[in-house]
Amino acid sequence: MSFRETDEIRGVITAAERAMRERDAAGLIGRYSEDVVKFDLAPPLGRSGDDARDVGRQQAWFDTFEGPVDFEVTELSIHVHGEFGWAHSLNRMSASPKGAGFAFEMWFRATYGLRKVDGRWLIAHEHSSTPFYMDGSLRAATDLKP
Amino acid sequence: MSFRETDEIRGVITAAERAMRERDAAGLIGRYSEDVVKFDLAPPLGRSGDDARDVGRQQAWFDTFEGPVDFEVTELSIHVHGEFGWAHSLNRMSASPKGAGFAFEMWFRATYGLRKVDGRWLIAHEHSSTPFYMDGSLRAATDLKP
Repeated sequence: MSFRETDEIRGVITAAERAMRERDAAGLIGRYSEDVVKFDLAPPLGRSGDDARDVGRQQAWFDTFEGPVDFEVTELSIHVHGEFGWAHSLNRMSASPKGAGFAFEMWFRATYGLRKVDGRWLIAHEHSSTPFYMDGSLRAATDLKP
Repeated sequence: MSFRETDEIRGVITAAERAMRERDAAGLIGRYSEDVVKFDLAPPLGRSGDDARDVGRQQAWFDTFEGPVDFEVTELSIHVHGEFGWAHSLNRMSASPKGAGFAFEMWFRATYGLRKVDGRWLIAHEHSSTPFYMDGSLRAATDLKP
């Protein structure tokens, strides 16, 4: 494993912290490969390619919040082999929905598949989720902490 | 990309179809590396190592159902480089909870990180999830279909 590659992958993944805080939809999406497959927190099950890289939709999501989206990548574990890697982390997000008068905070799991394209690491697959309670409620477990 | 490696990875991932149907907890868990990190459908956020490979817990989960657990791996996409790979799929599961008198069916997303250990592909990371509705209900979206 090369520390240089690991550092570069860490940089691509944690660049989301700044992009979320600054509500920079283009910056966030510029980290994805053209053929990215995303499994997001919200439906549908998945999106790929241009549909997953829709800057307008990302910006509209940012616009549902007042002020910055606080975002932190923790427990990041990176596995790399040549120009190919995968990683996982536990991420914390906090934001204030417009008009709600409060900020929510939630933790979720993230898994990344990565590829080096023209000398630059890109995210080719991203899977973000919370578990859900199998107690009949089917409630998303947005109240868990690491 | 080697077709042989891709075929072997496909075999390890889809072996879950038989293991689930036959409620074979040891068979299911024997596909994971000793240091596996699992992000499951149910809480907690994650489990790793021996905690993620607990055959007794897996068997107890099987025992909550009447008869076989029907399981299907679809849209499996495999990316492999040397002895290192990742993959994702959309999986369908159907089973009858004991005493419920009905079978549920749900689709979920799965992402896999893989490593070849002593000539055999193992799952070193598995992330399974449904999205959830961001409509205030926080309900897990267990009713989606590909």
